[in-house]
This record gives sequence, C-alpha cells and structure tokens, in this order.
Amino acid sequence: GGLTHFDATGQAHMVDVGGKNETHRIAVASGTIRMKPETLAIIESGTAKKGDVLGIARIAAIMGAKRTSDLIPLCHPLALTRVMVDFSIDTEQSSIDCRAQVETFGKTGVEMEALTAVQIGLLTIYDMCKAVDRGMVMSEIRVKEKHGGKSGDWSA
Amino acid sequence: GGLTHFDATGQAHMVDVGGKNETHRIAVASGTIRMKPETLAIIESGTAKKGDVLGIARIAAIMGAKRTSDLIPLCHPLALTRVMVDFSIDTEQSSIDCRAQVETFGKTGVEMEALTAVQIGLLTIYDMCKAVDRGMVMSEIRVKEKHGGKSGDWSA
Amino acid sequence: GGLTHFDATGQAHMVDVGGKNETHRIAVASGTIRMKPETLAIIESGTAKKGDVLGIARIAAIMGAKRTSDLIPLCHPLALTRVMVDFSIDTEQSSIDCRAQVETFGKTGVEMEALTAVQIGLLTIYDMCKAVDRGMVMSEIRVKEKHGGKSGDWSA
Amino acid sequence: GGLTHFDATGQAHMVDVGGKNETHRIAVASGTIRMKPETLAIIESGTAKKGDVLGIARIAAIMGAKRTSDLIPLCHPLALTRVMVDFSIDTEQSSIDCRAQVETFGKTGVEMEALTAVQIGLLTIYDMCKAVDRGMVMSEIRVKEKHGGKSGDWSA
Amino acid sequence: GGLTHFDATGQAHMVDVGGKNETHRIAVASGTIRMKPETLAIIESGTAKKGDVLGIARIAAIMGAKRTSDLIPLCHPLALTRVMVDFSIDTEQSSIDCRAQVETFGKTGVEMEALTAVQIGLLTIYDMCKAVDRGMVMSEIRVKEKHGGKSGDWSA
Amino acid sequence: GGLTHFDATGQAHMVDVGGKNETHRIAVASGTIRMKPETLAIIESGTAKKGDVLGIARIAAIMGAKRTSDLIPLCHPLALTRVMVDFSIDTEQSSIDCRAQVETFGKTGVEMEALTAVQIGLLTIYDMCKAVDRGMVMSEIRVKEKHGGKSGDWSA
Repeated sequence: GGLTHFDATGQAHMVDVGGKNETHRIAVASGTIRMKPETLAIIESGTAKKGDVLGIARIAAIMGAKRTSDLIPLCHPLALTRVMVDFSIDTEQSSIDCRAQVETFGKTGVEMEALTAVQIGLLTIYDMCKAVDRGMVMSEIRVKEKHGGKSGDWSA
Repeated sequence: GGLTHFDATGQAHMVDVGGKNETHRIAVASGTIRMKPETLAIIESGTAKKGDVLGIARIAAIMGAKRTSDLIPLCHPLALTRVMVDFSIDTEQSSIDCRAQVETFGKTGVEMEALTAVQIGLLTIYDMCKAVDRGMVMSEIRVKEKHGGKSGDWSA
Repeated sequence: GGLTHFDATGQAHMVDVGGKNETHRIAVASGTIRMKPETLAIIESGTAKKGDVLGIARIAAIMGAKRTSDLIPLCHPLALTRVMVDFSIDTEQSSIDCRAQVETFGKTGVEMEALTAVQIGLLTIYDMCKAVDRGMVMSEIRVKEKHGGKSGDWSA
Repeated sequence: GGLTHFDATGQAHMVDVGGKNETHRIAVASGTIRMKPETLAIIESGTAKKGDVLGIARIAAIMGAKRTSDLIPLCHPLALTRVMVDFSIDTEQSSIDCRAQVETFGKTGVEMEALTAVQIGLLTIYDMCKAVDRGMVMSEIRVKEKHGGKSGDWSA
Repeated sequence: GGLTHFDATGQAHMVDVGGKNETHRIAVASGTIRMKPETLAIIESGTAKKGDVLGIARIAAIMGAKRTSDLIPLCHPLALTRVMVDFSIDTEQSSIDCRAQVETFGKTGVEMEALTAVQIGLLTIYDMCKAVDRGMVMSEIRVKEKHGGKSGDWSA
Repeated sequence: GGLTHFDATGQAHMVDVGGKNETHRIAVASGTIRMKPETLAIIESGTAKKGDVLGIARIAAIMGAKRTSDLIPLCHPLALTRVMVDFSIDTEQSSIDCRAQVETFGKTGVEMEALTAVQIGLLTIYDMCKAVDRGMVMSEIRVKEKHGGKSGDWSA
C-alpha cells in the first residue's frame, strides 16, 4: 500500500479522518538514553529530594505530548484524555528507559503523541546532564503497543 | 561536577548565562530510523516528484529547532542564525540517517536545538510511513560536534 | 483524599478522564488589580475612544484561556465553547475587578481556563500601565462558581 | 444584524456555540500571489526534484490551519479532521493560486482555518522567493464554499 | 539568481545569516479587505465605544507579527523592537486598508513579520464580520517599504 | 504621563525600544496562594520523594516566563538569560509564597516575565490541589524589585 499522507497526485495532505469512529485509543511508546555510569549515579542520587532530573523530564514529556500536532506537520489535533510517563533505571546498561502511555477517545490513534512524549522526555534528560556528559545517546525509540480503532490491538 | 541546572539547594532553575560571551556557536546532531526495506523503497521512489517524505521531514525538523526552548523546560531561548538538515539513505541497513547543524551567535550552545531538529525530523518520517510500517525504530540520536563557547571544539 | 495528579507511586501524570461523561461545564473565576487613583483615572478616561486598556486586556484574557493546556503541565486540552471576560471599576477601592466565565462540553472542568483568563487579563492591565504605576498588586484570584460534571454545582 | 462577536454592551467575547449541533463542516478558501514571470519560472522548474517551493508552502499552510485559534482572538479551537491545500500555476497571469479545504465535525465552521491556510501558504511562497522578487502581491483571498451547520451550503 | 532558501543540492534550509551585520531594519506592509457598505458601516459605528472591530484586529496583528517565525518554515526568529498597525477606512471602495510597520535591530529583515501582521489583522476583521458578510475579499497584500541591511532602502 | 502603549491617536502599538540600550536587566516578582491547612500539609509531605507539587509548579513557572510575549499583547520578545523560582511555605498563614527572578541583557525590562512566572507557578499549584481544595486564593502578586535600564533600581 502507499502512504496515506499523500493524495493520488503525490501531494501531502492531512488525511480525512471524518468518517472514522470515535473509539478509545491507547498507544504506548518507549525509548532509552545511555550515559556514563557517573552520570547515572548523579541522576539516581538526585531523585529523592533535590536535583530531580526525572521528575522534570516527566513533566516535559507530558507537555510535549500535548504539543504533538504543532510539531508534526500532518498530525491531527486530538484532545488527550490521559498521559503517563515512566522512567526506569538500568544500572547494568547504564541507561534510563522511558515509557509513555497516551490515551484519547477520538478518530485517530495516539502513537505520535506517545513517541513525542518519549522523545521530549529523553531530550530533557540530555539537557539537564549535558554539562557532565555530552556523549549520551538516545536509542530504541519505538511504538510498543496500540489499541483501538479499525486496526485493533498491535504490539511490537 | 554536579548538574548546573540545579542550584545549591537542589532546585531547578534556568541557569544564568548573562556573564557568558556571545560567540559563534555551532552544534551538529544525528540520528537514524530503521524500517522495512519495502518502506525505504517507498520513500526512495517518492523523493523525486511526489510523495516527498524527506522534504516534509526536513521542514518539520527546521521548524522543530525553532521550538526547542518551548519544549525543553530549562533551555534558553536563542535566535538561531542557521539550520541545515540532511537525510541520507542507507540501503544496507534499511535506514535513513538524519543530520542537523544549527548555529547562533549567542551566550549558550545549540546542542538542544540540533537534537530537537533530529528528533522531530525522524518523528515526521515515522508519522508519514506508520500506516505501512508501525515497527520503525529511531536510534543513535546524539550530539556529534560542538563549536564555540568556553568549552571550544568537541566531537563525539 | 490525596492529589489525583499523582499516581500510587507519587509520580505526576495527566489523569485519566476517559471514563468521565461529556457534560456541559461552566466555570467562573475572578480577581482584582489595585492601583493608584491616578492610574485608574487614566484607564477610565481611555475606555471610550482611545487608549482602550480594558478592551485589550479582554482580548488577551480570552486568548489566554485558549492557551491554558499549553501552560499548565497536567491540564487536559479542551475545546472551549464560550469565553466571556468582564471588567468592573471600583473607584472606592481604586481597583479593577476581572471576571471570566468559560464553558465547554467535555470530560473535565474549565476552572483552570477561567483562572488563566483572569490572570492574563490582569497581567495585561499591569503591562499597559506599568510605566505610570509599577506598584500595582493583583489579588483575590479565585474560582467563584463551577457547574457540570460529577461534582455538580459549587460556588465560593 | 449586528456582529455576534460582541455582547449587548459591545464587549468582545468568544461566542457561545455550546448549543450548536456537531455536524460535518467543510470550508474552502482561495487566494493568489502575483509575481514576475522569471520568479514563476524558477518555482515551476523547482517543483520536480529540488527547490520545492510549493511543497514547503503546502506544509506551512496545513500547519497554519492548525494554529488558527491561537492567532485569531475570538476563534474557537476545533479538532480538524482534514486539511487539503492545492496550488495551481497560472502562467498567463504570472501567478499561483492557492486553494485550501478544511473539514471538521464540530459546533462551528472552519472558514477561518481555510483562510489561514491560504494566507500562510501564500506568505511562505513570498518568503521563499523574496530574495528575487520583493514586489509579489497577494490578492483575492476569500471563502469560496461552506457546507454544514445551520446556514447550510454557501458558495461565493 | 536562485532562491537562497535552497542549498546547492536543492534542499531547503534556514539560510545562514551569521555573517550579516546587526542593523536597524524596518519593513512596511499593507493590504486591504473589501466588504459590503453595510458591513463597513457597522465597523465604523463600532469604533467609538463598543464593538471595536479594528481595535481587536490591531491587537491580533501585533501578536501575529510576534509569531511569524513559528508559522513561516524558513523564517529566522527575531526580537522585534517595534510594531505599529494602522487601519484606514475607504468609504468609496467600501474597504479597510491595513498598514503594518515592524522594526528590529538584527541580522535579517522584517518583511515577513510586517506581512504576517497585515494578514492576521485582515483575517481578524473577516472573522468578526463573517456572520453578516461572508463574501469579504482580502487583496493587495504586499511589502511597501524596506530599510536597513545590505540591500538598503526599497519601496514598492 | 500617559500610557506609552498608545500612540498620539490612542491606538495601541508595541512601543519602539530600538533606541534603548542593551543593559543587564533584573526583575523580581512575588505572590502567594492561600489554602486550607490540610492542603498545605499534603503539599509539604509530598515535597520529599513523591507527589512533588512545588517541583512541578517551578517548572511550569520557568516555562511560563519564556511564553510571556506570546501571552501579553504588547510585550516585546526577549532572550532571557536567567530564571529562578522559589517557593516558601508559610504555615501560620496557611499559604505558599512564590518568588521569581528573571534576567536578560536587552532593551526592555523583564517585569512581565517575572510576573508571568509567578502567575503560572501559582496556577499550577491550584491545578494540582483543586481536587481537594477548590477555594484556594491567589493574592499579592506584584513586582518587588527592578534593576537596569534608564529607570535604574526600584523596589516595592
């Protein structure tokens, strides 16, 4: 099949979703940021009372999800009904994993919103730690699950 | 060293850059998105005359760079003087690489702007192709080079 | 009861409103700005034909209501169906009162939108008069009424 | 009839649409930009493989449609379900015509979104060609058709 | 000459202005909206004390100028130092003319900001009067003057 | 003196600051939110490890400062060089005080940015606690200090 974001003449458009049903839609995305063990240690020590890198990244991720249709040219604006963002620390890999779950009752899915939340969450971690570790790398950013809509359940 | 985005009591702040010099600052970031060979073939065939996925992703990336300080909580607003975004197709890896170079004359660096450009560029590719390939994965997003400012030249 | 904006582990989230009913929701908020009598006199004299401070503040307040979910991290985006903003001059107190009423048909209330309208309306008055009266003070900003949703009618 | 954007006392408000039906609403707007024949020739030659002025203008127009309620003070926010933007080259007039069609299922019409798409599309053409032709002129920007809602079908 | 917004390979970029001088830059743009004489009469009668269409359009135009680089993909962000917007009523043509003057001290010109101000100003007039006159037409939107920068003074 | 935001004919404009010097400018604003002692107790208990209301409000306040010129119609855009936001708990008054300090090197002051930070910070506290205490009241929002520019030092 071709790309639905282009019409028959190859021009981009914001595709017609008017005929789609408003259903409960859920998307889960995830990603990871690898860093030096010393950087990870600083983040871990800060989680408790001060220097809360992950708390700030979570807020940025949630706010980022709400800005998705401003950022992605052909993405439909959607009234999100839920955004959850979790971080988990992987000491062995010296990395932090981010997982975002976004939900709506609407005519299109929310994969882009979940991915945007993960990207902005990871970028915020990078921003806050870049003074001590410029070489951090963000990877494995992908959609993990998708529920609702015509295509039903899907998982990676 | 600690994280400069927190003050002595551990509270987040937008760090004082008032005393820094306005210098010519350059940052280069890169990242990649892996996909099915069929998806890559569709993108390649479209580059010429219609269905220009990469042309649209480039515009989204450039516009994303300009929104960085809206998205990243403690990032300083900066008047960017140049944004360049390139995509290159890696048939062997079945992936597309994105490289963004951002410049300014200012008091802080533009790594975050370059990274945001890459992230939004890759997200836009995902958005445009997700109907045919939900399992695409974005990886190896990182700063590659940084010039200007007190820390001088740096490369990954 | 605890704060609903945090999950069981204490992490912030944009709370799930997917199961809530779409009802007609109304919120009214108010606030006041105190100033020197001379400043109030300038605003009053200007209302008629030129120098319309309150007309501009009203527009800013209405536009501010529409930006609420961009500004308040855990606030749900909502399609507002009505925004009304009124100012009344209190010569005795040398102050201007602002009252905003916001309505929607949706799954969550619009108190935050009404409060944001009041705040931006008052801030705009401050901005326009600060050259003659830096000491103006904004106070008594609160929700006055709330209708619709599970909690029904409420007034301060 | 008076202007609905003002209440009985002449103050601006975002008019109450809460009682309106959610119907399928369509608006079509159009406009044109006149330029030197040489400028038009550059745009035409670029459409194919590189220097895709119209492809970029189309993306800007679509994104602009989504920002309408941020830009127009009393405009209701709406979840657009479709945005299509077309350009056609009129060699005889040495001009490019832009046509935007916007759709939603909602309580108010989408004329403003269609007009904003046209305006931003034309402005983007201006921006990209201004280095070679500062005297370009945008004209005949208007609503062409409107469907749905109480007023039913209308065309210019 | 070719279009500076594309590089040698035809890809769009935000062009490098880092080497340009920061000079005082001024741009003036104008445009007009034609309407039925009855519509013009309503606007004229409202200017004084209530129903101030042009006062609201002026505010929208000024705010629009500040959003230009968010809307126009390859436009540089600039710290504007002055924005003036005037409307004049042309009873004979049954139209309203808008003129915007924008200034900055910076590395690029402000034509786009002046044009955006005019466009948003005219769009706001359309929005406020569309309930009584759907057929209004916006025309002759153009840059009138430009001062500062390497190209010096220019007028249409 | 009259209001500088209006020209000689009484029309609003974004005032010309082109002739002003770029100096180091500092503004401090403050404000308070009163609540039930039980609400304050919940916030206090949460500060440590989870349910960090004030940490989230601080981030919202900092981000709000950066959006000021988008929200306040005649406010100049400025590249902020520093934003600090502090909260202090007043158990006796059952309130939380917010203090924001904003700095720039520019042609205009940053009072509006400091006030906006305070307003958005207090609004975020309201949002997060409204489920348990709808009657919270925000007061005494004002500029406390101002340094730099022609008017020099000022304090309330």
